[in-house]
Amino acid sequence: MPLTDELREIAAKVSNWGRWGDDDERGTQNLIDADATRRGVATVTTGRTRSLAIPLDQTSPQEGGAPGRIAPMRTMIAINQTYVGSEGEAAFNDDMVVMSMAAGTHVDALAHVTYDGLMYNGFPDSAVTASGGATKCGVQTLDPIVSRGVLLDLPAVKGVERLDTGYAVTEADLDAAVEHAKVSLLPGDVLLVRTGQMQHLHAGKIQKYNHDTPGLSTQTIEWVHRHDLGAVFTDTYVFEVWPPEDWGAMMPVHMIHLRDMGQIQGQNFDFEALAADCADAGSCRGSVRPA
Amino acid sequence: MPLTDELREIAAKVSNWGRWGDDDERGTQNLIDADATRRGVATVTTGRTRSLAIPLDQTSPQEGGAPGRIAPMRTMIAINQTYVGSEGEAAFNDDMVVMSMAAGTHVDALAHVTYDGLMYNGFPDSAVTASGGATKCGVQTLDPIVSRGVLLDLPAVKGVERLDTGYAVTEADLDAAVEHAKVSLLPGDVLLVRTGQMQHLHAGKIQKYNHDTPGLSTQTIEWVHRHDLGAVFTDTYVFEVWPPEDWGAMMPVHMIHLRDMGQIQGQNFDFEALAADCADAGSCRGSVRPA
Amino acid sequence: MPLTDELREIAAKVSNWGRWGDDDERGTQNLIDADATRRGVATVTTGRTRSLAIPLDQTSPQEGGAPGRIAPMRTMIAINQTYVGSEGEAAFNDDMVVMSMAAGTHVDALAHVTYDGLMYNGFPDSAVTASGGATKCGVQTLDPIVSRGVLLDLPAVKGVERLDTGYAVTEADLDAAVEHAKVSLLPGDVLLVRTGQMQHLHAGKIQKYNHDTPGLSTQTIEWVHRHDLGAVFTDTYVFEVWPPEDWGAMMPVHMIHLRDMGQIQGQNFDFEALAADCADAGSCRGSVRPA
Amino acid sequence: MPLTDELREIAAKVSNWGRWGDDDERGTQNLIDADATRRGVATVTTGRTRSLAIPLDQTSPQEGGAPGRIAPMRTMIAINQTYVGSEGEAAFNDDMVVMSMAAGTHVDALAHVTYDGLMYNGFPDSAVTASGGATKCGVQTLDPIVSRGVLLDLPAVKGVERLDTGYAVTEADLDAAVEHAKVSLLPGDVLLVRTGQMQHLHAGKIQKYNHDTPGLSTQTIEWVHRHDLGAVFTDTYVFEVWPPEDWGAMMPVHMIHLRDMGQIQGQNFDFEALAADCADAGSCRGSVRPA
Repeated sequence: MPLTDELREIAAKVSNWGRWGDDDERGTQNLIDADATRRGVATVTTGRTRSLAIPLDQTSPQEGGAPGRIAPMRTMIAINQTYVGSEGEAAFNDDMVVMSMAAGTHVDALAHVTYDGLMYNGFPDSAVTASGGATKCGVQTLDPIVSRGVLLDLPAVKGVERLDTGYAVTEADLDAAVEHAKVSLLPGDVLLVRTGQMQHLHAGKIQKYNHDTPGLSTQTIEWVHRHDLGAVFTDTYVFEVWPPEDWGAMMPVHMIHLRDMGQIQGQNFDFEALAADCADAGSCRGSVRPA
Repeated sequence: MPLTDELREIAAKVSNWGRWGDDDERGTQNLIDADATRRGVATVTTGRTRSLAIPLDQTSPQEGGAPGRIAPMRTMIAINQTYVGSEGEAAFNDDMVVMSMAAGTHVDALAHVTYDGLMYNGFPDSAVTASGGATKCGVQTLDPIVSRGVLLDLPAVKGVERLDTGYAVTEADLDAAVEHAKVSLLPGDVLLVRTGQMQHLHAGKIQKYNHDTPGLSTQTIEWVHRHDLGAVFTDTYVFEVWPPEDWGAMMPVHMIHLRDMGQIQGQNFDFEALAADCADAGSCRGSVRPA
Repeated sequence: MPLTDELREIAAKVSNWGRWGDDDERGTQNLIDADATRRGVATVTTGRTRSLAIPLDQTSPQEGGAPGRIAPMRTMIAINQTYVGSEGEAAFNDDMVVMSMAAGTHVDALAHVTYDGLMYNGFPDSAVTASGGATKCGVQTLDPIVSRGVLLDLPAVKGVERLDTGYAVTEADLDAAVEHAKVSLLPGDVLLVRTGQMQHLHAGKIQKYNHDTPGLSTQTIEWVHRHDLGAVFTDTYVFEVWPPEDWGAMMPVHMIHLRDMGQIQGQNFDFEALAADCADAGSCRGSVRPA
Repeated sequence: MPLTDELREIAAKVSNWGRWGDDDERGTQNLIDADATRRGVATVTTGRTRSLAIPLDQTSPQEGGAPGRIAPMRTMIAINQTYVGSEGEAAFNDDMVVMSMAAGTHVDALAHVTYDGLMYNGFPDSAVTASGGATKCGVQTLDPIVSRGVLLDLPAVKGVERLDTGYAVTEADLDAAVEHAKVSLLPGDVLLVRTGQMQHLHAGKIQKYNHDTPGLSTQTIEWVHRHDLGAVFTDTYVFEVWPPEDWGAMMPVHMIHLRDMGQIQGQNFDFEALAADCADAGSCRGSVRPA
């Protein structure tokens, strides 16, 4: 079933169509302007870097997930191969990979979800073809994202190890986490929403990780829009809460974020080490770039 | 044929084996410490970001290049697919890719080149296997690189559009470009060596791009080592000059950089727009992260 | 441009829609019945077998051919790998492949070409989707083909080494070749149409092989239909003559064969050794199965 | 651990090294000579054909099987794509696949298993490389196999639906099945050993199918050698019984069949429909070609 009337009202309210021009394909990346980038850079204090990506290998969390998403498979095309064969020669190692683009830590292209025949900013869904891929709103429209990252450590706020499976994150949860982070959100900020769900993947329990998960509820859509966030990343497979609050709409947060708001969002981010850093430092800001 | 005696002497002189411990696999990434990262971040002034990567698609510069390196091929696993089929439903687009890992803009893992049966820091070349990949010095040892980038705009220094095919870049060329960039190199800096060769790829002339190219000569190895650079990236397919100065050694700069120095290096970077920016700004520094 | 009126008339005349039932997806495979199979088997005299397939490797004739068709790439997932590591243990070699399905010797699924929104037997072209593939008339509808094969050795008939590039094979050519083969065609026979074009691929000249080629003209469509052939295979990349006789219609033989006749056809077959056998034997019949 | 002394004695006894020349890479394919092919063809009576292959798709029985073996993944590179775009134009569907070569019904290349550093006929195991694949005894040495097939329907003989998981097939079992099939085995015959295990795959129980299975015991090795069979195919994932009779040797039947005997063998064949045919006909012979 389609979006309920209530969700369609929200969709209309938070729509960013036309906001950055009729041919815009960048969505909320427009909010990550030079000021936001400089503001992000200015938060750097320790100079320590942290990858927020999970490994790209056969442990990728696709098992039993969306059909057709195969885990990254690396194979070697050359192993210590010399081209002329004599002793002491340069020997080369070279490899290739085949993988689903959503197999690991990733940012959703805005073209990822459409409805009513349209994608973000009114482009027709026919802009996606087998031979051309997403000719509108595809990953080619993603620029390097450098901005201020704000970790919303929901388990820390609630004093639990991780949120419960199926927990629907509310506006109040987000507000409490912002307060806990001791920051005021500004347009173009990048939100890192930690639920702790990644702990299941670390433990090798793929289906516990990717099946029912905590995540954003439809209630948070207006909150995200109000704060004009550059991007929102989570440490879950689904991003939004699963199973859905209402089976009437399949992935309503994806539908409204990607198609109506042009909201850059991403999944399968690993915030565990970062959260430990922030707990030590007593603060959760930093310059962020995905993966 | 193996390295000449002269090159073996250079290799011994610039060796970083053991410098960061006997089990180090990170090589010159160790030079990009927290100070270097903060220094890089401090150079940010305009807040403008630039991707230095070329597109990952079938125009990738592998045609007629190293055997087995296939250009990135994207295919769709779902096109506007609804899972329940009713009107107004969320429709999903999803894709996968198969590609050589060296098909586009890339950083060489230190395990990429070995000789005399050893890779960087003395690890045996048998650490690379078909099933396990590079279990030592593989890409899994690459951290996010955030440091100060210095563009060495060789064509700008010489007042030409681009260096000639087969031109071997000298120490003097690098010194002149550093002076032109108005910076003093510091340990952990990331060097962006522009030859202008990328113009051929922009023009769609893949084989003119990836075949004979200008590039670093063996003469520059000690220069790079002396400056303790975190990484060195170029806008060519081969990195070093091709054809080689001396056919006696296959890719001597790769051999000594990767195996003896643990020197992080990368290829197929696009510096054309960045060079134009720098020419406008009259300066060539900035915070750099690869691709 | 679409089919000319003249070609549409031919299409109507040779249509096999409904001939084997409204839900038939097998097309002319229906002609290869038990009798045809027994007749094919009865032609076996020497008991010698010949593969008619070209190698599946990077020499596959796609270079500069149809966009997106990548040549077969084999990589190893295990090389002499023991699972417990002790001396004398079983060591395993295992591999994988990525390839375009039309990269080598292949039979066209009837779903390969559609027009006016329909495929063979009136199935809608929407039966092909990204996630499901060809859910109608796909390769899953191809059974093992065992029938009598008849080699039409066009160069032998004409006394030339191979047909000229761009030569359009006529009905008269086919009749002469049948006579030369000393057979009477029967329903369900499999035609092996040799032009000699494969010699270019043997010589390593891929683009000479796959670009302009000799091939079947639209004139032969009714001839093929009249003989109720089970399948028609050729030793060229395009199957039909290229460039087309009339640029008004793109691949008219494909259009009418696959969509209107449900005619099983295939390409890139290697008949060179078989032709030599037949020349020795003075006859060109035998039991045939593709590749 | 390596082969026991007892198994090494068997290996020496059944060795075919040198039997067909010192450079032979074809193994028991040599037994499928013109006579065997003609004999196979002569068994054809009904003219009915049966594919013995399982589908090549994501249901392939690799889940939880050998590491790195990914199930076949098909994607479309073109869907009803017209190249010039006008109404009524030819529209093309085209696809590609990525798959493990052992993901479905397959014949083992003789290079698949080595031990003591050697493969069949004494070729060094170093003949398998990442860039070149199996340069000796690889699939390129497999010719079309046309011979007499003999179905050994073990469940029918025993009056059970299928053999028990972990059942080790004995010489006596094979003799009884040959008698039940009312044939006398001849050199070059192809054995189709049905255990009924395929029923689990039909039922969608992949891990029940590919995990513990009935299969050939080491006791059958000399029996197979004595009968000089061209090939032996089974309806299981492992071919031989699993878990092994003696954990001292990993896959001893593979080791001796492939490396010592050069015995062509294959797995994941679907004999269910064929067995029903034979039960109806009261006989189990027919011309066989794999998949």
